Amino acid sequence: MSKKINISIIGATGYTALELIRILQNHPYVKLQYLISENHSGQKISDIYPHLLNVCDLQISNTDLDELTKNSDLIFLALPNGESQKIIPKIIGKTKIIDLSGDFRVKNLETYEKYYSQKHSSQEYLEQFIYGLSEINKEKIRISNNIANPGCFATAINLALLPIKNLISSVDIFAMTGSSGSGKNPKIETHHSLRSHNISSYKISLHQHNAELLATLDLKENQINFVPSSGPFVRGIFANCFVDLNCRIDEAEIIQRFNDFYKKSFFVRIKEKVQLVDVLGSNFCDTSFKLHNNKLIIQSVIDNLIKGASGQAIQNMNLMFGFDEMLGLKNLFPIYL
Amino acid sequence: MSKKINISIIGATGYTALELIRILQNHPYVKLQYLISENHSGQKISDIYPHLLNVCDLQISNTDLDELTKNSDLIFLALPNGESQKIIPKIIGKTKIIDLSGDFRVKNLETYEKYYSQKHSSQEYLEQFIYGLSEINKEKIRISNNIANPGCFATAINLALLPIKNLISSVDIFAMTGSSGSGKNPKIETHHSLRSHNISSYKISLHQHNAELLATLDLKENQINFVPSSGPFVRGIFANCFVDLNCRIDEAEIIQRFNDFYKKSFFVRIKEKVQLVDVLGSNFCDTSFKLHNNKLIIQSVIDNLIKGASGQAIQNMNLMFGFDEMLGLKNLFPIYL
Amino acid sequence: MSKKINISIIGATGYTALELIRILQNHPYVKLQYLISENHSGQKISDIYPHLLNVCDLQISNTDLDELTKNSDLIFLALPNGESQKIIPKIIGKTKIIDLSGDFRVKNLETYEKYYSQKHSSQEYLEQFIYGLSEINKEKIRISNNIANPGCFATAINLALLPIKNLISSVDIFAMTGSSGSGKNPKIETHHSLRSHNISSYKISLHQHNAELLATLDLKENQINFVPSSGPFVRGIFANCFVDLNCRIDEAEIIQRFNDFYKKSFFVRIKEKVQLVDVLGSNFCDTSFKLHNNKLIIQSVIDNLIKGASGQAIQNMNLMFGFDEMLGLKNLFPIYL
Amino acid sequence: MSKKINISIIGATGYTALELIRILQNHPYVKLQYLISENHSGQKISDIYPHLLNVCDLQISNTDLDELTKNSDLIFLALPNGESQKIIPKIIGKTKIIDLSGDFRVKNLETYEKYYSQKHSSQEYLEQFIYGLSEINKEKIRISNNIANPGCFATAINLALLPIKNLISSVDIFAMTGSSGSGKNPKIETHHSLRSHNISSYKISLHQHNAELLATLDLKENQINFVPSSGPFVRGIFANCFVDLNCRIDEAEIIQRFNDFYKKSFFVRIKEKVQLVDVLGSNFCDTSFKLHNNKLIIQSVIDNLIKGASGQAIQNMNLMFGFDEMLGLKNLFPIYL
Repeated sequence: MSKKINISIIGATGYTALELIRILQNHPYVKLQYLISENHSGQKISDIYPHLLNVCDLQISNTDLDELTKNSDLIFLALPNGESQKIIPKIIGKTKIIDLSGDFRVKNLETYEKYYSQKHSSQEYLEQFIYGLSEINKEKIRISNNIANPGCFATAINLALLPIKNLISSVDIFAMTGSSGSGKNPKIETHHSLRSHNISSYKISLHQHNAELLATLDLKENQINFVPSSGPFVRGIFANCFVDLNCRIDEAEIIQRFNDFYKKSFFVRIKEKVQLVDVLGSNFCDTSFKLHNNKLIIQSVIDNLIKGASGQAIQNMNLMFGFDEMLGLKNLFPIYL
Repeated sequence: MSKKINISIIGATGYTALELIRILQNHPYVKLQYLISENHSGQKISDIYPHLLNVCDLQISNTDLDELTKNSDLIFLALPNGESQKIIPKIIGKTKIIDLSGDFRVKNLETYEKYYSQKHSSQEYLEQFIYGLSEINKEKIRISNNIANPGCFATAINLALLPIKNLISSVDIFAMTGSSGSGKNPKIETHHSLRSHNISSYKISLHQHNAELLATLDLKENQINFVPSSGPFVRGIFANCFVDLNCRIDEAEIIQRFNDFYKKSFFVRIKEKVQLVDVLGSNFCDTSFKLHNNKLIIQSVIDNLIKGASGQAIQNMNLMFGFDEMLGLKNLFPIYL
Repeated sequence: MSKKINISIIGATGYTALELIRILQNHPYVKLQYLISENHSGQKISDIYPHLLNVCDLQISNTDLDELTKNSDLIFLALPNGESQKIIPKIIGKTKIIDLSGDFRVKNLETYEKYYSQKHSSQEYLEQFIYGLSEINKEKIRISNNIANPGCFATAINLALLPIKNLISSVDIFAMTGSSGSGKNPKIETHHSLRSHNISSYKISLHQHNAELLATLDLKENQINFVPSSGPFVRGIFANCFVDLNCRIDEAEIIQRFNDFYKKSFFVRIKEKVQLVDVLGSNFCDTSFKLHNNKLIIQSVIDNLIKGASGQAIQNMNLMFGFDEMLGLKNLFPIYL
Repeated sequence: MSKKINISIIGATGYTALELIRILQNHPYVKLQYLISENHSGQKISDIYPHLLNVCDLQISNTDLDELTKNSDLIFLALPNGESQKIIPKIIGKTKIIDLSGDFRVKNLETYEKYYSQKHSSQEYLEQFIYGLSEINKEKIRISNNIANPGCFATAINLALLPIKNLISSVDIFAMTGSSGSGKNPKIETHHSLRSHNISSYKISLHQHNAELLATLDLKENQINFVPSSGPFVRGIFANCFVDLNCRIDEAEIIQRFNDFYKKSFFVRIKEKVQLVDVLGSNFCDTSFKLHNNKLIIQSVIDNLIKGASGQAIQNMNLMFGFDEMLGLKNLFPIYL
């Protein structure tokens, strides 16, 4: 594998794009080709983000989609929900695509419309996208040209629950994300003066990632309650799941299930006890559990921008191009402090 | 009421003592008499805590308990769990007492020993202490001489659940506290380098405040799961309760129950949506709830050092001495930022 | 003094207004009359800021200025720089005024225009405003009807330097403020994801508070360098001044000067060593100094929203109405944590 | 270069050791051989730091120094000040050494004793250590066997001042470090409850890094004032230098000096304006300056654990072994958020 693949990013100035750029700079088989951002065309990425000076001084362009697809082996769409579906019809089939938005994750239109509060303008392409959770869809991802990269909350929660998926009678989830989950545009909720000591929940049982959970875990709406929350930190997701089991089971059997389920998944670690700092800066998802009163309490932690977004997207890229799944990711060690 | 009462604090250099001192300085009917701390006898409190210079320069003493009880109308015990029970036999009956530790909250010895992992050395006095949750025990507190001040987690959770206590089939609780909840002695978990971006849970279903919840809410152990957690902030507790109801009920009826239950409780506010900043610096407990899939999701927030400790203790003091319950507390407005 | 004075606030939803409301609620001789905010007329202040529910539920209005001045004994202008000067011509002389903006602090028009980068539209009223630094202008404030409330950086720095003002050959100042100093409107620089671990300086030697420093300290522009900086915290200003002295002096004499200068200033404390937490939540300014290599290093700390804005404004109000200068402020004890 | 070198770390559980391990894991020519820590012998490093599970599960040992030197091509001493000098006599000459403590940085014994408040027990080896600031000592480092790795504050300040070193008449420095600079042992000053909103200075003009500054910059004690400070963040140093120049110079000439001085130093970037986030997670030192009133204000920022400690140490290692100076370091991109 001597030839590098050409990678382009549409929506190149957001937080997930920044994280893609950071990780891809260390990937041996990748060349960053185009950074696309309507608002910043003509500027260098390092003019906008001076931490990138001498590291990535690529110019941002407004290249037309024809030239873009012609010269790119893969395009990452790092756009807000609702924006990818406007572009997909013009690029699908012409290059490989990894979409980091929520636009092509949910195949059921009714569910999509309920949780995203909008009509889908490109529903005819929904079935061409594979849900990019490599822990369950690895073989499909390898042969796919279009990936719907999972949501951050959904990744943390799905990885916590998948090994015991068929044992779930119902599940209540409290999960908390840092301020980077809100994106780079400043808002009241991410004003430092408030956010640095605030906690609140939002969209209780209405969060758009609910739709991914229902599909991936084969649950009905009345089996799940999901309370997404915002916390006073920058990076990471901490998820706590209370699972009502549909049968008796002991801890040993649960450990066995987790170990079996993740035996080929380097990036999922099973621990006695998780803590958020253990995964920050890395592509790891750590999980732990306790069985108590026949309730199974499972916790998981991820870096929302890495395993919850850009790291996972690159993991999918590796699979799509036949690279080692861990390339460019294994070297992202948890930073701890 | 012209005469001031004399107040002393044993354990005068910890965080809850600092908060007692801060609040009591603005109380019109209180005189701080003795600050007791073995390790700092002879120093001024403002030598140890220079923010108190010119505000409270009282000398810390090692006064013997006889003199202390003789000259104090009320003693606050601001000691770690296990320490109050050593002192109580020497002072009980000689002065009024508010104990901020967990030593006299749990009347059932078996439960106490299980959750506190120790024998009780002063069990004969257990029944002389009233559990100081004024929202349910106001009249008992008024005529009591000895108060067991509730725990911080327990206060937030009990206030969330009490109005629908008899509707609980089972309840799963995820609650998070700030670093001030760990006390002033530096530990690995409260090292700024870690804590400022960490989340973890501890003592899942084994936390000592479980014992208070069981008693106050009349629940059996298999009806409750409590996941206490530590978050990257200084002050406050955020509690999220998933309640399985034992009957059908609609939102209107729940609102009615909350409004009725707290109609005389100025410090409990019922809101559409709670957020932690709304109560910081104040004696308020804010609550909100959503009914979803016949699961009732109730959230509550408090300042752990005020409503969760010293503010509540002063609320109890006011009741014990016939003062207006809100004296010295109503002026603690939420700081917001 | 039985009658309460009527107070109104124009610009009632910003951070300094919130702090005025919080402090004034505990002031025995003040009644909040009108809260004025163009954008929020008709809403309750507690609709916008739910922490104020049951604490201050006053309705925000768009009351015309005639009615406002007729029914108010004092109006606080809590507006951005440049906005007060538009309103002053319509209200001056009709009621007492405390302006928290920078519009009337600088009497020299040339200096004003240089540092504020704009023309002054109400220069004819400049001389009617007294600079509200009570530590030097107490008697003038008592008999004034119009106060220009000092800037936050300027307060911290002036209080550090005034006692040795005539000894300054030149001074270099590095000062750092928290994110609340940027106001409530979210900006890139106050996005929590960045600000929580960022430090940067801005407007080096061009900051508008420079103008106040020059006037108050009788310095020429080439005698002072001021590096204003932003730090990763919410509240507070930490100022460090390196002073080149124009004569030999020893530490004892400096202490003497500080003690003499502030002997009647309860809110300025002279310490061995300052730290920011010692003043947060209070109206205190703490100062300390070291003499080294005939360079005098003076440090000072304040809460930018209290002594640096709203607390100082209320101190001025107390003086203007003949109240005890410390009323409503002495009870604001430093919160420490 | 196919053979890997064997690296060992003494003091393997501190923050700088953790950072060495993290960076060295990605270095192509390094094998971690021994992790030495008296208190944790027998445990895996990932038992103590669970973020390292599956990343580095090396066992900590108490290997004797003979075996250690025999099997190591290089030993990093990641020990507190005063501890390295006890070990050096036993290992010097038997293997290459990089000492991250302050023990061998200062050659002048009188200066050492003044700033470190202790006698030096291994002064006979002082001259065998090269001061490992590669920007000035690159060729000496290449041929040295023993490196005294520079201090964190000293690195940030020296890199800011070296290009104009001979123009300094005197310099006043205010610099601020994060809590990771205090090491992993919890202390009052690094308790999260305080540190998250505190700023204070310490050892004004007495900090041990003063000694390095004096030597590297050829300054006399009366030419420099250094105010080291602690701020409410985890990683990074922000340094602000006010330089009195000994001659007239214009900005163009200063830029020229900086560009010339650092033209071969990839890790020093010259910018219009520095901000701390731009270097966090990387080995970069960013600098900027303003000339005002013939005072030169220079600012610099580094990650204290990388360029200020472990990154710089690995840069020195690369030089000592003839590797590309940037190996393992160029891939450490600034994390930004």
